[in-house]
Amino acid sequence: MTYCLAMALNQGLVLAADSRTNAGVDHIATFRKMRIWEREGERVLVLLSAGNLAITQAVASEIDRHTHDDTPERNPMAVASLYDAARLVGEAVRAVHRKDGAALREAGVEFNISLILGGQIEGEEPRLFMIYAAGNFIEATNETPYFQIGETKYGKPILDRVVSVETDLARATKCALLSLDSTIRSNMTVGLPIDLLVYRRDSLRVETHRLIQDNDPYYKDICHRWGVGLRDLFQVLPDPPWGGGDKTAG
Amino acid sequence: MTYCLAMALNQGLVLAADSRTNAGVDHIATFRKMRIWEREGERVLVLLSAGNLAITQAVASEIDRHTHDDTPERNPMAVASLYDAARLVGEAVRAVHRKDGAALREAGVEFNISLILGGQIEGEEPRLFMIYAAGNFIEATNETPYFQIGETKYGKPILDRVVSVETDLARATKCALLSLDSTIRSNMTVGLPIDLLVYRRDSLRVETHRLIQDNDPYYKDICHRWGVGLRDLFQVLPDPPWGGGDKTAG
Repeated sequence: MTYCLAMALNQGLVLAADSRTNAGVDHIATFRKMRIWEREGERVLVLLSAGNLAITQAVASEIDRHTHDDTPERNPMAVASLYDAARLVGEAVRAVHRKDGAALREAGVEFNISLILGGQIEGEEPRLFMIYAAGNFIEATNETPYFQIGETKYGKPILDRVVSVETDLARATKCALLSLDSTIRSNMTVGLPIDLLVYRRDSLRVETHRLIQDNDPYYKDICHRWGVGLRDLFQVLPDPPWGGGDKTAG
Repeated sequence: MTYCLAMALNQGLVLAADSRTNAGVDHIATFRKMRIWEREGERVLVLLSAGNLAITQAVASEIDRHTHDDTPERNPMAVASLYDAARLVGEAVRAVHRKDGAALREAGVEFNISLILGGQIEGEEPRLFMIYAAGNFIEATNETPYFQIGETKYGKPILDRVVSVETDLARATKCALLSLDSTIRSNMTVGLPIDLLVYRRDSLRVETHRLIQDNDPYYKDICHRWGVGLRDLFQVLPDPPWGGGDKTAG
């Protein structure tokens, strides 16, 4: 499994991914799920992927092999807009499906992939897209400023409580790490290290990109404080006023 | 969808279920998912169900129609142990599968049901079982004192942080309600009212059974305080020490 999330905020983008891949519980490995195409001062594209590892790697290769292409619509280093970049990723998914789809179906393997693409290209705002296995996609809005792919449920409640487009990058980063932590605790197929990228609007370069291991002092500190704080908060909430002889279920 | 959970603790059992049923988003209704067989001073059996509503109702009817049966192994009011009661429920699932399984398969409908059975029969400890669609089952232990069925993921992190067999009934009840609240917030196919039953060890009768609506003052109060407390806790956690020019992802 995998857990990736990304937020499109007024100040920029926060993107995070775990690094665990499993094909059955006896085949667990570490693979990076974040890929970056960058030309400082002009473009930053960040792709997060979940699903079948062979398919996600094939899609990334399909994108990469066009980075020196003369056709700008197929070249991530040349596309004119993030929308065009999302189309390019969708077309790469379709190209892999054309090559491998029939064989996978025959083997009973689902064509399982989902992707998040975020970034900024000079002349545009930062944008964030989620791309489906069919190659179609949706874009984040002010009302729905974050996307998740993979094992999304454990880490969703904190996002719903905390994140809006006004959230600043520092707080959004903190929230992304806690969302990852909740997921890692509840599902052993999601694991460290965390690939974290914080993109500041209009910087047009990657300033903050960290691979967070289990010994990262900040990550350890906030996860510990969050756990202790939750238990403390739980303790101080009042106990139920009913507890004996109270049958009111009708 | 549905969300039910149950805990087997040193002090007794806590069982809770939401009441929403949906067959597509345009067919949402309220159905109770908790059923009780009780003879004060002798036995309390509580059954929680998730899955296809027609199947869960058929299983409950299959159990009910034996409540005056002379064969004690088939009669929930006569079985000698909770283990025998879990077998009886499993057999009821199998009986429904024999009757309806083929027709459902033909219609492309999955035989989808999962159940939790908890309670106490005189002469035994309180016990808790989870019963699968195949009619087989597992029992809760000191190491794994709770079971969930249905939409289980949103409400799991708080259980993992708070619940152990030593948790007292009041705190476990509080935790169950917060776990339901997290799920209800994140998935619109899980909804109020909450059917809540707290069983005190060796009482051999249902003392606390409440149907919690959205105007329940205690439920409203703890959910509100929990939400505010989480946001406050999040705010006081330190912001990340990195934030610009920090590329260490290697």
